[in-house]
Amino acid sequence: MSFNTFGKIFRFTTWGESHGPAIGCVIDGCPPNISISESDIQKDMDRRRPGQSKFTTQRKESDKVNILSGVFQGKTTGTPISILIYNEDKRSRDYESIKDKFRPGHADFTYFKKYGIRDFRGGGRQSARETASRVAAGSIAKIVLKKIIGPKFKIIGGVTQLGVLGCNINNWNDSEIRKNPFYCPDKNSVKIWEKYLTEIRKSGSSCGAVIEVRARGIPVGLGAPIYSKLDTDIAAALMSINAVKGVNIGAGMGSAFLSGEENSDEIRNASGRIKFKSNKAGGILGGISSGQEIISSFAVKPTSSILNSRETVTKKGKNTKISVKGRHDPCVGIRAVPIGEAMIACVLLDHFLMNRAQCG
Amino acid sequence: MSFNTFGKIFRFTTWGESHGPAIGCVIDGCPPNISISESDIQKDMDRRRPGQSKFTTQRKESDKVNILSGVFQGKTTGTPISILIYNEDKRSRDYESIKDKFRPGHADFTYFKKYGIRDFRGGGRQSARETASRVAAGSIAKIVLKKIIGPKFKIIGGVTQLGVLGCNINNWNDSEIRKNPFYCPDKNSVKIWEKYLTEIRKSGSSCGAVIEVRARGIPVGLGAPIYSKLDTDIAAALMSINAVKGVNIGAGMGSAFLSGEENSDEIRNASGRIKFKSNKAGGILGGISSGQEIISSFAVKPTSSILNSRETVTKKGKNTKISVKGRHDPCVGIRAVPIGEAMIACVLLDHFLMNRAQCG
Amino acid sequence: MSFNTFGKIFRFTTWGESHGPAIGCVIDGCPPNISISESDIQKDMDRRRPGQSKFTTQRKESDKVNILSGVFQGKTTGTPISILIYNEDKRSRDYESIKDKFRPGHADFTYFKKYGIRDFRGGGRQSARETASRVAAGSIAKIVLKKIIGPKFKIIGGVTQLGVLGCNINNWNDSEIRKNPFYCPDKNSVKIWEKYLTEIRKSGSSCGAVIEVRARGIPVGLGAPIYSKLDTDIAAALMSINAVKGVNIGAGMGSAFLSGEENSDEIRNASGRIKFKSNKAGGILGGISSGQEIISSFAVKPTSSILNSRETVTKKGKNTKISVKGRHDPCVGIRAVPIGEAMIACVLLDHFLMNRAQCG
Amino acid sequence: MSFNTFGKIFRFTTWGESHGPAIGCVIDGCPPNISISESDIQKDMDRRRPGQSKFTTQRKESDKVNILSGVFQGKTTGTPISILIYNEDKRSRDYESIKDKFRPGHADFTYFKKYGIRDFRGGGRQSARETASRVAAGSIAKIVLKKIIGPKFKIIGGVTQLGVLGCNINNWNDSEIRKNPFYCPDKNSVKIWEKYLTEIRKSGSSCGAVIEVRARGIPVGLGAPIYSKLDTDIAAALMSINAVKGVNIGAGMGSAFLSGEENSDEIRNASGRIKFKSNKAGGILGGISSGQEIISSFAVKPTSSILNSRETVTKKGKNTKISVKGRHDPCVGIRAVPIGEAMIACVLLDHFLMNRAQCG
Repeated sequence: MSFNTFGKIFRFTTWGESHGPAIGCVIDGCPPNISISESDIQKDMDRRRPGQSKFTTQRKESDKVNILSGVFQGKTTGTPISILIYNEDKRSRDYESIKDKFRPGHADFTYFKKYGIRDFRGGGRQSARETASRVAAGSIAKIVLKKIIGPKFKIIGGVTQLGVLGCNINNWNDSEIRKNPFYCPDKNSVKIWEKYLTEIRKSGSSCGAVIEVRARGIPVGLGAPIYSKLDTDIAAALMSINAVKGVNIGAGMGSAFLSGEENSDEIRNASGRIKFKSNKAGGILGGISSGQEIISSFAVKPTSSILNSRETVTKKGKNTKISVKGRHDPCVGIRAVPIGEAMIACVLLDHFLMNRAQCG
Repeated sequence: MSFNTFGKIFRFTTWGESHGPAIGCVIDGCPPNISISESDIQKDMDRRRPGQSKFTTQRKESDKVNILSGVFQGKTTGTPISILIYNEDKRSRDYESIKDKFRPGHADFTYFKKYGIRDFRGGGRQSARETASRVAAGSIAKIVLKKIIGPKFKIIGGVTQLGVLGCNINNWNDSEIRKNPFYCPDKNSVKIWEKYLTEIRKSGSSCGAVIEVRARGIPVGLGAPIYSKLDTDIAAALMSINAVKGVNIGAGMGSAFLSGEENSDEIRNASGRIKFKSNKAGGILGGISSGQEIISSFAVKPTSSILNSRETVTKKGKNTKISVKGRHDPCVGIRAVPIGEAMIACVLLDHFLMNRAQCG
Repeated sequence: MSFNTFGKIFRFTTWGESHGPAIGCVIDGCPPNISISESDIQKDMDRRRPGQSKFTTQRKESDKVNILSGVFQGKTTGTPISILIYNEDKRSRDYESIKDKFRPGHADFTYFKKYGIRDFRGGGRQSARETASRVAAGSIAKIVLKKIIGPKFKIIGGVTQLGVLGCNINNWNDSEIRKNPFYCPDKNSVKIWEKYLTEIRKSGSSCGAVIEVRARGIPVGLGAPIYSKLDTDIAAALMSINAVKGVNIGAGMGSAFLSGEENSDEIRNASGRIKFKSNKAGGILGGISSGQEIISSFAVKPTSSILNSRETVTKKGKNTKISVKGRHDPCVGIRAVPIGEAMIACVLLDHFLMNRAQCG
Repeated sequence: MSFNTFGKIFRFTTWGESHGPAIGCVIDGCPPNISISESDIQKDMDRRRPGQSKFTTQRKESDKVNILSGVFQGKTTGTPISILIYNEDKRSRDYESIKDKFRPGHADFTYFKKYGIRDFRGGGRQSARETASRVAAGSIAKIVLKKIIGPKFKIIGGVTQLGVLGCNINNWNDSEIRKNPFYCPDKNSVKIWEKYLTEIRKSGSSCGAVIEVRARGIPVGLGAPIYSKLDTDIAAALMSINAVKGVNIGAGMGSAFLSGEENSDEIRNASGRIKFKSNKAGGILGGISSGQEIISSFAVKPTSSILNSRETVTKKGKNTKISVKGRHDPCVGIRAVPIGEAMIACVLLDHFLMNRAQCG
């Protein structure tokens, strides 16, 4: 049992609150003899880091990664890797005015009722700041997978829906994703999304998003019946991210609309290689990877901290109103892209090791 | 780590193949001194059992539950409860003709590639027959929760979408659900669904479905940050069910379309009781139950075993075609209703015990 | 968390009470494609089985193993192996007279106080009958290890002390062990032990024992810092056996008496092979196997069920006396030999798979 | 599965190497609303800290505890508590001369063979420096147990054997323990021990020790069959400590010498309170606490780093000799007292929470 730990063999445990001195994680079960450095991890950290465009919070955090253990002379030793990230821009005073109110859509109410105490500064442990640790762990997972699988391995995510606006998934272009502030894979959508989100931001409101993550080069055979299916663990991994309310594998919720013929991906031998004619399954059959691209997606609800006034109650149960003035993203979904990638990387490495354990 | 075990404190481990001598499960961590009998469990088993309408497989299984341990003089003793269900209607010969072919949409290919061996009879371990064990475990979880929480506790699921046809969720009526063969909560949809599914069945095809499960009477405070969130475990629980490809909590994937105002459920003190004005969150905030109804839904893909011919390959990699003649449901989603309820019950009891452990 | 499960990757969950209909276990994580049969396992079962000499209980149990899942056409499939053993000789009436008394040295008192209910028939879940399931699991572990490691792999245990009588450990002879009813490795001790135990049996008393288990052919590198050390898991495995009160690795408790020079096993390169000059460490350094013989031992306390009268209280707290007339071993330690071997086999296979996961 | 994590509900994960920048741990599952401060923990740290008498290593470490998360306004919040301790006195150069040699009795050989890489500075992860983190975790466990159980709760350990010299256990006196540099509970032994250990230290050798830990005020009912028995977890906890080779519960290895009559602790109702007439069981029956004092003991082997020259091989397999000149304890067992106490505290709290989960 593990409240704050994720994974089975490659495991990470995160700790820390939004406005405490630091946050971090301990990564256990990482294979030894893998070259790893703080700067490798920093690249992924910088993609999640706030303050990179006008569409993300202006909190200033360098999110500098410190490796305190588990790496010796540039290589992993097989012992726990402790990562520490200092909190720098802690404006706790921003939260004084709302410390006795429960912000709607946030976990203020449930944390307080559960524990009888909560760190109200920036949401404390509920804060999405925790996800910085996930990105660090995922970065290490990617490095290990790249070493094991080779150059054909790739994990890439993008925002495929911003509020009510979708994009044309058939236009997915990896290289497009890092060129726009929305991580949108379809360049045709960028302008209209920009206009749309600017308006939302100015109006003091927020919107949700859908993020899709694709993993390539994954061998057949990862995943295990029945309660460690690859898709089961992906669903848990993605649903554990702050503000996520839905998870799809392949056709996902849309598979309900398909006929049996449309849904079953036919199989062909094409010049000695087994190929599927479609990928409604998202690369997972019976919980086990099929060798196709692993495709998952998830919905992030709109940022709950909005300028517009909302009804709520105080800790003592008095009716009141609240308007959250801090520094917030109009669409937190955008910054969820590297987090989703990180979680998928961790699940895949974990299952790679699990499969190696049982099946050699 | 646990391939075939679900849960953290209230845990069950399932075993067995579709056409082996029996299937079953071992339930560990059940509280002691709870009155329990085979006939209590049997009621839930009968709802999942095949052959109950023309819309489900005609395989004949009585699914009779045998309790082999953990219950003494009608009460649980706190020790493992072993449940055994014999397989009765095993027509393994049905599978001889397809034993060397990989059925598209099934896990034949991935199991064989992973393990180098597979029990091809009825899908072996991949078969949804495994879910009978889940229903037994869930039945026990419900009995325990009922005893702990009292009469206000209820878990009820229904099919809210059948293939391309939805129903009006606002017409949800608990008592309607068991009156029609689709477990549909909206009686206005029953006739049109009947016509629709009859046609699909006759055409030798199949369709998907969406199932929604509602849990009532759940106290505030179940769930734990960060990787044992209640919704994280629900997502894993539902995604682990055969043929499930998508999971929603509350507004789910639809939350991407909402504005911040629409999404954040406002809070009021109504005559001394804290109430939410809406339930977009599905009763879970920050991974912790809020005291509202816990609402989750999941999509089941269309039955992969269809009469219509599909392209595939043999174990040796030869291109071929396949048409699955066995006894199959035109929409497996229907029988997933009691399975979804069972999984939700297990997650909730598990979190109740986890919360009692940490928070007293 | 797992009350009734042992192991991390190769895991078994046992269930069942002494006088219920059956006992059994579910083994998860077993590698696929290993040839296995009920008769292979039966050989180990027969060594633990009661009624084989006048020094063991006369309860008549055939302990016939039934494999209900996980094996197809004679080979493991990588899915859970369910094993069921019927209880045949259940004389529950023997226990009617003592059902309201707490037998000293047994867990009657603690089970009742913990759970508020207990199956008093033969001790219910506390009964050493549970260990039959361990022997079955261990038997499978041995088959897998033999296949992986080859013929140099061997696990063998013996009784090295019977009550107050030791034996000369330097006379250890594998082939001697199965020739005498005490599993004693030193044939010089057999006669005197026979006389000693006969007297104890006739006097209605009982005695304790020390069992030593040796594992050979184990590669360097099994075990992991810090809380999954090989010796940590061996200690847990052996201490979990009924009536065990002490566990040693190598020199064990005796290492306190050694000097630094005596204790540190010196290392030599002998014609290209690394050799240790002694084995005080019992083949484990820093929790990791060194390639030497893995040596552990454990003490089993005297059988608590004795004919001679003892003071105790009733369930209602009344002072009374008790004399246990059932069918009992004068030294339960003897039958613990195959159990100890089984547990060591399970730990070693588990660590083999864990090491394969992390280190390839 | 968890290489570097201990516990099931109250869990701690340690990280860090002897000569890295810092060591620490993350404690998860701690109940909320418990008053806790760095200075509370520091008291226990100071007892384990090196350099406190001439019988312990002269390495200078303040072992100052830093709490980075999980405590808000002086109280635990129920979220992970991250503890960090800087390494201050890192004389890595001491180890340059032996970095290519395997120190006999240490894990140098096994770590290198397992991982293909190792941090040789002070043993890296194998170093007993890791145990500082355990003492911090144990300190918190004690504070929680004290709050739950009240003033009758106490855990106290002492050295009952130093090398070949025992002490009179019947003279056990709690208040004596902290008055002498050996944590010896029998004041009659102090002088002779002092003379003995001084000689060993001067001769450049070392000796082993036995430590006994007693826990009082523990309620009936902690522990769970079969593989989470209280004694099973205690055995694992103690055996996981560096250099421990044997573990006893109650009479321990000595129980083999007892008769059934001597071993079974008789039970009496004395004026309405259930009392045992003896405590051979060490307070644990069938893996469950009986309400008596919980007594366990463990043997620590002699310090492996000794001045006297020993034979070994180099990384490349060349025969050589080694003499370890660093700063070492002549008997590491002495400093194991607070570590043993800490591990027992963690196990007991963990089982308290587990019992609360299942049995309410």
